[in-house]
Amino acid sequence: MYNHHKLSLFIFLLLPVLTFAQVKPATSFRIVPLGVLGGADESNLSAYMLAPQGSDNYICLDAGTLHYGIAKAVANKTFSVPADAVLRKYIKGYFISHAHLDHLAGMVINSPDDTSKNIYGLKSTLETIKTHYFTWESWANFADDGGAPQLKKYHYKPLEPGSETDIDNTEMQVQAFPLSHSNLTSTAFLVRSKDNYVLYLGDTGADEVEKSQNMHNLWAAVAPLVKAKKLKAIMIEVSFPNGQPDKSLFGHLTPRLLMNEMRELGKLAGVSLQRLNVVVTHLKPPYNSIIKIKQQLKASNKSGLNLIYPQQGKALEF
Amino acid sequence: MYNHHKLSLFIFLLLPVLTFAQVKPATSFRIVPLGVLGGADESNLSAYMLAPQGSDNYICLDAGTLHYGIAKAVANKTFSVPADAVLRKYIKGYFISHAHLDHLAGMVINSPDDTSKNIYGLKSTLETIKTHYFTWESWANFADDGGAPQLKKYHYKPLEPGSETDIDNTEMQVQAFPLSHSNLTSTAFLVRSKDNYVLYLGDTGADEVEKSQNMHNLWAAVAPLVKAKKLKAIMIEVSFPNGQPDKSLFGHLTPRLLMNEMRELGKLAGVSLQRLNVVVTHLKPPYNSIIKIKQQLKASNKSGLNLIYPQQGKALEF
Repeated sequence: MYNHHKLSLFIFLLLPVLTFAQVKPATSFRIVPLGVLGGADESNLSAYMLAPQGSDNYICLDAGTLHYGIAKAVANKTFSVPADAVLRKYIKGYFISHAHLDHLAGMVINSPDDTSKNIYGLKSTLETIKTHYFTWESWANFADDGGAPQLKKYHYKPLEPGSETDIDNTEMQVQAFPLSHSNLTSTAFLVRSKDNYVLYLGDTGADEVEKSQNMHNLWAAVAPLVKAKKLKAIMIEVSFPNGQPDKSLFGHLTPRLLMNEMRELGKLAGVSLQRLNVVVTHLKPPYNSIIKIKQQLKASNKSGLNLIYPQQGKALEF
Repeated sequence: MYNHHKLSLFIFLLLPVLTFAQVKPATSFRIVPLGVLGGADESNLSAYMLAPQGSDNYICLDAGTLHYGIAKAVANKTFSVPADAVLRKYIKGYFISHAHLDHLAGMVINSPDDTSKNIYGLKSTLETIKTHYFTWESWANFADDGGAPQLKKYHYKPLEPGSETDIDNTEMQVQAFPLSHSNLTSTAFLVRSKDNYVLYLGDTGADEVEKSQNMHNLWAAVAPLVKAKKLKAIMIEVSFPNGQPDKSLFGHLTPRLLMNEMRELGKLAGVSLQRLNVVVTHLKPPYNSIIKIKQQLKASNKSGLNLIYPQQGKALEF
C-alpha cells in the first residue's frame, strides 16, 4: 500500500515533464531579436540574430539596432558572454534585406568596434550600401569595395536568387528571394540548418498592391517545406493596421494583407497552417497602432497560425 | 525678544535663497541633450536642443538620436508636453555639423513623423544629405531638393561662413565656421539670442594635427565675446583619452588637445577663462575610456574651466 502510493506520487510528479516532452519537440533554431519595431525609435529597429540551436555561430538578419539590443539581451541573460563578444564573435555575417536606414544603421554605427565579416544581400542592396553609407562622406569605408581607401573589414557577398549559398563560419546555408517594397527590391532570406528552415522577409508589400509576382513565387518555393513540416518559422512584417489606404502603404503589409498571403501559402502547400510559427515583425509605432494590429491579426487568424510578437533581447526557439 | 527671534529665524530661512540668487545669475539659454556619446550606442548619439531661456522655440544641434532622447527627457519631466509635441512643435530646425551617420540618423529615422522645417548646414554637408540619405535608395526624399519625387517636408538652408543668419521661427541667429574633421569639413555653430551666445562645435581635430587654421580662426572670432562675458557656453568634443596616437585620432580631440585649444582662446581673449562653461561632448565608449577622459580633463584643468558632462534628457541652463 505504501509502495503503491509512492509509485502514484512518482507518476503524478513526472506527469508534467512527460507532457512537456510530448508537446515541445527539440528545437532547431534560436533567434535573438535585437530590435523589432518598424521605425521612429532608434533604440529598437529591425535586427534579428539567428543560429542553429546549440551553436554560437549566428547571422544577423537586418541590422537596424545592434548595440542597444545586444546590451538588453546581455542584461536579460539571453547571452552569457559580454556585449562586445556578442558583436565581435557571435555575429558571423550581416544579411541586409534592403538599404533603408532603419535596417542597417546599427551595422554602420558599430562598424568601428566590429570584427571582419561578410555583408550578404542582393546586388542592388549592396550597391546602395557601397555608394551611400560606406563612402567617405557619410561614414568611413569599412568595406573592401567602393571609395578609397578601403578599410577592408567587411566583404560584400552578393546573393543570386535561385541558388543556395553556404554562410561562412556557420553551419547554415541561405537562399535569397526578391520582394517588392515600393520603389526598392527588398529580400527574403530562406535560411537552412541541416534539414530545417527559417524564412525571414524584409519589408514587403502584397502582390495585389505592388502589382508583382514576388510573394507568389516565394510561397510556391517554400510550400513543399511547409508541407514537409521543415519550415520552423516565418518572420514577416505587418507595419500598419487595416484601414491604411493602399496609396499610403509604401510597400508594407496590414493584418488583412498578411492573412491573404498566408491563405495563398496554405493553398500552395495543400495543408493546414495550424500552429505554423509566424513571427510578426516591423510593427510601426505609435503604441495604439501596434495594439490595433495585434487585435486585427488575432481576430482574423482563422487558420490557427501561431502568431508570435518578438521582444527585444528575449530569445525565441523553434 | 520673541519678535527678535522670529526675525532671526526669518533671515536664517531666507539666507539660502539670497545666496542662491547671488551666485546664480539669470540664465540666457536652455539646452536639452537628446544624445551625448561619440558612437556605438544607437540610443544616445549626438543631438542637443537649444532655446533662449523661457522659449519653446528650440533648434536641434546635430540629430544622431531624437526619439529615444526625447522620450527620456519627457520621462524626466524636462518637458511638460508629450514626446510627439517636442519633435513636431518644439524643434524648429536642424543644424547638422557634418554628414556622418551618428550626427543625423535620428533626423532621418524620425522624418515620417516630423513637421515641416529647415535643415541648416554648410553647403557640402547638405549636399551629402541630399545625395546619400534623402534619396530614394536609402530613405524617402523628404526634402525639397534631390531625387524625385520630393516630399518637400524639409528645406535645405545652406549657411555661408562669415555672415549671420536669422533662424526661422525662433528668436535666435546663427553664424557657421568651418572645422577640420579628417577628410570632411565639419561645422561650428555660433548661436545668438539677443546679446548672448552659445558656441557648438561638431566633431573636430586640432589645428596641429589637422594642419589647419580653422580652430585658430574660430577662437579669434569668439575671443571678443569671451572677453565681454557674452559667450555663455562652449560645447566641444573630446572623443579619446590622451595616448591615442595622432594617426588614430580620425579628426577628434583628446583632453590634452582640448586644453591646448582653450589656452589659445584665453590668449586671444586676453582674459582668464576661469568658470567659463565648457560642455564636453562626444565622449566615445567604452566606459573605462570615458572615465579616463574625465580624469585627464580634471587633472589638466589649470585655468579653472567649468567642465560639464551633459546627460541625456537632463536640461542645462546657462
